[in-house]
Amino acid sequence: MTETWIDETLYDSWGQRFRVVRELARKRSAFQDIVVFESAFHGRVLMLDGVTQITERDEFVYQEMLAHVPMLAHPEPKRVLIIGAGDGGVLRRVLQHASVERAVMVEIDGDVIALSKEFLPGIAGDAWNDPRADVIVGDGIDYVAKAEDASFDVIIVDSTDPIGVGEVLFADAFYRDCARILSKDGLIVNQCGVPFMQAEELHDTSLRRAKFFPHVSAYVAAVPTYVGGFMTLGIAGKGEKPGTQSAEQIEARAKAAGILGNTRYWTPGVHVGAFQLPPYIAEHLPVPNAAG
Amino acid sequence: MTETWIDETLYDSWGQRFRVVRELARKRSAFQDIVVFESAFHGRVLMLDGVTQITERDEFVYQEMLAHVPMLAHPEPKRVLIIGAGDGGVLRRVLQHASVERAVMVEIDGDVIALSKEFLPGIAGDAWNDPRADVIVGDGIDYVAKAEDASFDVIIVDSTDPIGVGEVLFADAFYRDCARILSKDGLIVNQCGVPFMQAEELHDTSLRRAKFFPHVSAYVAAVPTYVGGFMTLGIAGKGEKPGTQSAEQIEARAKAAGILGNTRYWTPGVHVGAFQLPPYIAEHLPVPNAAG
Repeated sequence: MTETWIDETLYDSWGQRFRVVRELARKRSAFQDIVVFESAFHGRVLMLDGVTQITERDEFVYQEMLAHVPMLAHPEPKRVLIIGAGDGGVLRRVLQHASVERAVMVEIDGDVIALSKEFLPGIAGDAWNDPRADVIVGDGIDYVAKAEDASFDVIIVDSTDPIGVGEVLFADAFYRDCARILSKDGLIVNQCGVPFMQAEELHDTSLRRAKFFPHVSAYVAAVPTYVGGFMTLGIAGKGEKPGTQSAEQIEARAKAAGILGNTRYWTPGVHVGAFQLPPYIAEHLPVPNAAG
Repeated sequence: MTETWIDETLYDSWGQRFRVVRELARKRSAFQDIVVFESAFHGRVLMLDGVTQITERDEFVYQEMLAHVPMLAHPEPKRVLIIGAGDGGVLRRVLQHASVERAVMVEIDGDVIALSKEFLPGIAGDAWNDPRADVIVGDGIDYVAKAEDASFDVIIVDSTDPIGVGEVLFADAFYRDCARILSKDGLIVNQCGVPFMQAEELHDTSLRRAKFFPHVSAYVAAVPTYVGGFMTLGIAGKGEKPGTQSAEQIEARAKAAGILGNTRYWTPGVHVGAFQLPPYIAEHLPVPNAAG
């Protein structure tokens, strides 16, 4: 029997390859090519335009770091906006926080949500049915342009890389609206790629965010299937500077939120340590001492 | 023109692939298959038995974390033993420390040293010619069995995975000898694999080291071409517990050693943060609170 492999096509000279047990879905949506397959090691894998978005086996790393860090860097997040994240994994982590009263998720591609519900039901769990959740199939750019001033405490942008459908999520107009609709201690986080491979992504988006937020910083996570060492998550805020809280403060907030002990990657120590950027990453931040 | 790719064969269901510009050397040594090639993105790459050992572009991550963490966790390392590390990159980092009087490197495969000198000269730089360096082509197991009691302050084991030629470096007898030949504040570090893919490696070697050392711990590094998220570096000591020093203490030692500001991954903050293990990794350490 011949083996079937899928090669990731994100970079043209290097990449990861998965041995495929069977393909579960392949669809050309209005926005992108969507593939879901059962892999031999990582469980089910979701790829968009040939780029790995999530695997069942390591999704906890990205989801926990993308959701819990801003949620606990904020003193009391009640209203949360999630843009993208069609698999529902960020929504699930956000709703774990006891303080949350409302979580709006805006995903542009309804097919990603539908295929995730069908083939990756464990990623979101019961989040889709939580009465605090409002799941909208629509354009995140439009949503933030029309949302009221100061109507959210945390914005989490779980976009693809700034190519294709996700590109507009890295533009000035988007960040200006995000700053406007965030409340006074508001925070925004977005993935900024893997600096070893995509250093300009962290640099460019940090520069953009610095136009609209007094505090611009970044933290790292080692996601097994986002190959290339650390990925960076850019965080910008209007209130407390992210990354300056002590592990003790973060632990107290996590305990109150009901998060402590319920994670596989995130801990208060990992949270604080993630803001300690290696120089090869810190040099791409335009703001001196941006890492705190 | 057809493209040439080399697939890493470490795992049977997942792996990385490099686009090859040209192959520089391929040799069946007495111990292993050695390949050096020019890659399209990572510079030159050294593979042993199909497994990536070093690339010019990301070698700094592994080398700095393998060398500087134990060298600065020790109060004043003068005599250092390096086992393996035939490319010379660890030797170079060890010799950067002002306190070092003698660095013995024992590599079993002379062909790895010869090919590294020829095709990867930048990895070791001038380290081969340093008067404090003593480079021995020989068996590390024999060397530690015959070395005098308390004759080294730090032992750094830069082995392949515990398959093939590196397997004996993970056995009880080896760790017993290492404990014997280390001085009273002595430390040993060795790579323990990528827990996301090879969790038993960290667990098994930690158990073994716990038989001979009072302090057994581990820290992490995100090495781009050791795919699978964090790799772990196991560290065991007889004196101060590794990972319990403050960033200020480490910074003071690094300044005295001449290391501060001369690194691209390691910083005092990264050093301290690296001991904060995600739960999915910490659960494989047999010793409670081993991470400090």
